Amino acid sequence: MAKSKYEYVKQFERETVFLPHTWLVVRIDGQGFHRFTATHDFEKPNDLRALELMNRCARGVFDQVGGICFAYGESDEYSFVVHENSQYFNRREAKLVSSIVSLFTSLYVFYWPTVFPDRQLKYPPSFDGRIVCYPTEAILRDYLAWRQVDCHINNLYNTCFWTLVQSGKSTVDAERELMGTLSADKNEMLFTKFGINYNKLPSIFRKGSIIVRDYVEEEHTDKATGEIRKKRKMRTVVVHEDIIKNKFWEQRPHILGKK
Amino acid sequence: MAKSKYEYVKQFERETVFLPHTWLVVRIDGQGFHRFTATHDFEKPNDLRALELMNRCARGVFDQVGGICFAYGESDEYSFVVHENSQYFNRREAKLVSSIVSLFTSLYVFYWPTVFPDRQLKYPPSFDGRIVCYPTEAILRDYLAWRQVDCHINNLYNTCFWTLVQSGKSTVDAERELMGTLSADKNEMLFTKFGINYNKLPSIFRKGSIIVRDYVEEEHTDKATGEIRKKRKMRTVVVHEDIIKNKFWEQRPHILGKK
Amino acid sequence: MAKSKYEYVKQFERETVFLPHTWLVVRIDGQGFHRFTATHDFEKPNDLRALELMNRCARGVFDQVGGICFAYGESDEYSFVVHENSQYFNRREAKLVSSIVSLFTSLYVFYWPTVFPDRQLKYPPSFDGRIVCYPTEAILRDYLAWRQVDCHINNLYNTCFWTLVQSGKSTVDAERELMGTLSADKNEMLFTKFGINYNKLPSIFRKGSIIVRDYVEEEHTDKATGEIRKKRKMRTVVVHEDIIKNKFWEQRPHILGKK
Amino acid sequence: MAKSKYEYVKQFERETVFLPHTWLVVRIDGQGFHRFTATHDFEKPNDLRALELMNRCARGVFDQVGGICFAYGESDEYSFVVHENSQYFNRREAKLVSSIVSLFTSLYVFYWPTVFPDRQLKYPPSFDGRIVCYPTEAILRDYLAWRQVDCHINNLYNTCFWTLVQSGKSTVDAERELMGTLSADKNEMLFTKFGINYNKLPSIFRKGSIIVRDYVEEEHTDKATGEIRKKRKMRTVVVHEDIIKNKFWEQRPHILGKK
Repeated sequence: MAKSKYEYVKQFERETVFLPHTWLVVRIDGQGFHRFTATHDFEKPNDLRALELMNRCARGVFDQVGGICFAYGESDEYSFVVHENSQYFNRREAKLVSSIVSLFTSLYVFYWPTVFPDRQLKYPPSFDGRIVCYPTEAILRDYLAWRQVDCHINNLYNTCFWTLVQSGKSTVDAERELMGTLSADKNEMLFTKFGINYNKLPSIFRKGSIIVRDYVEEEHTDKATGEIRKKRKMRTVVVHEDIIKNKFWEQRPHILGKK
Repeated sequence: MAKSKYEYVKQFERETVFLPHTWLVVRIDGQGFHRFTATHDFEKPNDLRALELMNRCARGVFDQVGGICFAYGESDEYSFVVHENSQYFNRREAKLVSSIVSLFTSLYVFYWPTVFPDRQLKYPPSFDGRIVCYPTEAILRDYLAWRQVDCHINNLYNTCFWTLVQSGKSTVDAERELMGTLSADKNEMLFTKFGINYNKLPSIFRKGSIIVRDYVEEEHTDKATGEIRKKRKMRTVVVHEDIIKNKFWEQRPHILGKK
Repeated sequence: MAKSKYEYVKQFERETVFLPHTWLVVRIDGQGFHRFTATHDFEKPNDLRALELMNRCARGVFDQVGGICFAYGESDEYSFVVHENSQYFNRREAKLVSSIVSLFTSLYVFYWPTVFPDRQLKYPPSFDGRIVCYPTEAILRDYLAWRQVDCHINNLYNTCFWTLVQSGKSTVDAERELMGTLSADKNEMLFTKFGINYNKLPSIFRKGSIIVRDYVEEEHTDKATGEIRKKRKMRTVVVHEDIIKNKFWEQRPHILGKK
Repeated sequence: MAKSKYEYVKQFERETVFLPHTWLVVRIDGQGFHRFTATHDFEKPNDLRALELMNRCARGVFDQVGGICFAYGESDEYSFVVHENSQYFNRREAKLVSSIVSLFTSLYVFYWPTVFPDRQLKYPPSFDGRIVCYPTEAILRDYLAWRQVDCHINNLYNTCFWTLVQSGKSTVDAERELMGTLSADKNEMLFTKFGINYNKLPSIFRKGSIIVRDYVEEEHTDKATGEIRKKRKMRTVVVHEDIIKNKFWEQRPHILGKK
């Protein structure tokens, strides 16, 4: 069987390999999630369990795919940062994007029954992915700030919109009422009309979710003495903090530091 | 909130857009399926239900993602051919690869309980994907021939190997016995030692699986007369035929023809 | 001297390598030739010597750079076709473009005094270059037709424009008179107003210039008998024919044929 | 004339556009300069006029092509640094490479008779070009250090080699004598055998040539008073200094600074 006769077709394969010493961001996005969230009765403006499912999947990707040092998620999207020093998959675009998007999707369907024991998955969801290369840490930080600002703007809007709708307005009227309003107006409206202090809402909604490896104090029982001791361990954690200002990064210099 | 301040980071996004009038092949591959098939007790050399699950997922991708005119699968891989005239996703690499690999994975986990009601999915599987561009139909045909030859060679080898093992040989001895043998030797061995006529084995194992849209005769009952009439309808079908020779293609000129 | 310390910077080099079995066109264009032709008093609408200089340079490129099977020039641009089977420079984009544009430019300055012995080169001209990949011979033929149609349209317009100007019109009036006219109108105007039969003008102006290797009959004197014999030899030739219709190509199947 | 019928071929054009905020280096190299220098009797190990011609051409490119903030040359190669903030040619690869290599070549042939009035150019030289993208200033600095180290190593070797040859050794014997020697050995050999203090040789040979815009003191005569005044002006200058250490850059923060 003349196998070799056809093998020349491998010469048509091309690889995009990203430059060394650059930061790579793989961002995945739910495809058609407008319909998906409607079909599966997600709570509005935020469905806490749906966000927890996203975080669980992202954590799986974070722990299994090499080279990822940071992840940020909001709504139906997640950004995974591949460290500038990572050589995982030799920095090949197709491998990085397809592996991350595939594993994330797999985890989503896999964990659905655990997170939503009462709600059946009606059809299989899918995500698309892309990869963007950022040459410096400063620009990467701006990328992450861009996503967190996006989370804030969307969440503030959606909180107002759904509060209005839940108070009896039609969606058209709610939309009209919010048109042209600034952040301050929206905060004011929530507070005066509905007694909602936006800044007291759960930070997972306002700040999105951050996955990093960080030092955590854990208690260990000394087997010999029975004494309880605290030890600092490096663990994967999910937090909901401001990543626009410097404080978060100054407290965790190991995240973006040289590996 | 100075959204605009960070939006410049979008300028770093790059798109690979494939040339018009070229054939695109998205090939997906199971990641770490050696371990996955072992953990999930797949039958050797072929697990029919596992192949049917692959085909079911591929069929879902075939029907949902635009521009795909042909798909070919064997083992834990599947190739999807995007027609040279397709403008789906504007021929953007990241969108095509990530959407197909994500949907395929989602379907795999989603349909698992249906196909394997008796076997629990122990951990979420993942696939990687790549896209290759072929400039002419002739070279595309050589690509598909390459995959079908690969299917044949692997299946003949695996059939011999597992037959020897099931007959009591150790895996090391089976491997040694097959070393350096030609196709003819392997056919001979199966026939004389084990009474197996290789060419009579199921074609899904020997030829792999092909998904196309094809004309199918369907019976319709005329509501007025109650008469049963045959109608030719275009349907998505899965077949297991030779795609190396011309016959398959000559019988179905619509598959690769101008759209 | 720690040479190795810095050599890692080579890892940042990237190569664009074109797909096998595709046609590559390197097109070069004069940069700022509006000013260049004005400064050097080129005749209008066509300067025959300037075109001959372009052809001479293109011929030098054609003969020195590997893999080129066809070249087409008009005005201050030239297209070089790299054969689909060529492996020259391993089909690397930067090598192909830079070598061709550099050699062409070098020849232009080098041959200037020979072609224009009476006119000094006042400043060094430059060209830019790009490379485009065409997947099939049919599309390559369309590319070449596109350029020859462009040559025809521009030349017909320029011939009318400069004939009007030379007859005493201002450039503004000449432009206005031609606005909205069709090819037929322009032919008619040249004939009735100025007695010019456009189709009798030199084909180098109307058709552009084509460089190919072709069979040429040459006379050889037999040294023994003194007899003159005709021999067919393959030579690089410059011709000015129609390349849109099939005839040119049917007469010369070796040009685009398999190598 | 159906122009539009063929214009679809423009859809095949692709542009590589470099990432914003990255440093681009266009490096050009003489093609076949071994033969070129032999044919044109260049002095060994260094021909001062040939280097001056290279510098003159590089200076022309530096002054005419936008976005270049630094250039470094040695032997028959030159590197042009496009500033990270430059938007010239929209950072398109083909435009940048082809324009720079074409203009450089044009200047080389154009200025040849001025620099070598006694030596005719026997055939047209050509250069190839490539472009490399560096994400940070630190890595760009390492690139430039790499080239200057290369200049030093080659020049020390060539100085020894040609001194040995000029002292009567065959080229084979000279090569053998230098095999395996370290820098210190070569310096020692030049000094003890030939009385040459390598560090006293012209810095253009040892350090290569650097082109930058820098502040230069110029004398101006005040028209009113006739007084001579010194003014600092920004001028394009060619220098031959160390660019590996920080001093050069600390003295000229404007070169790589934000534009």
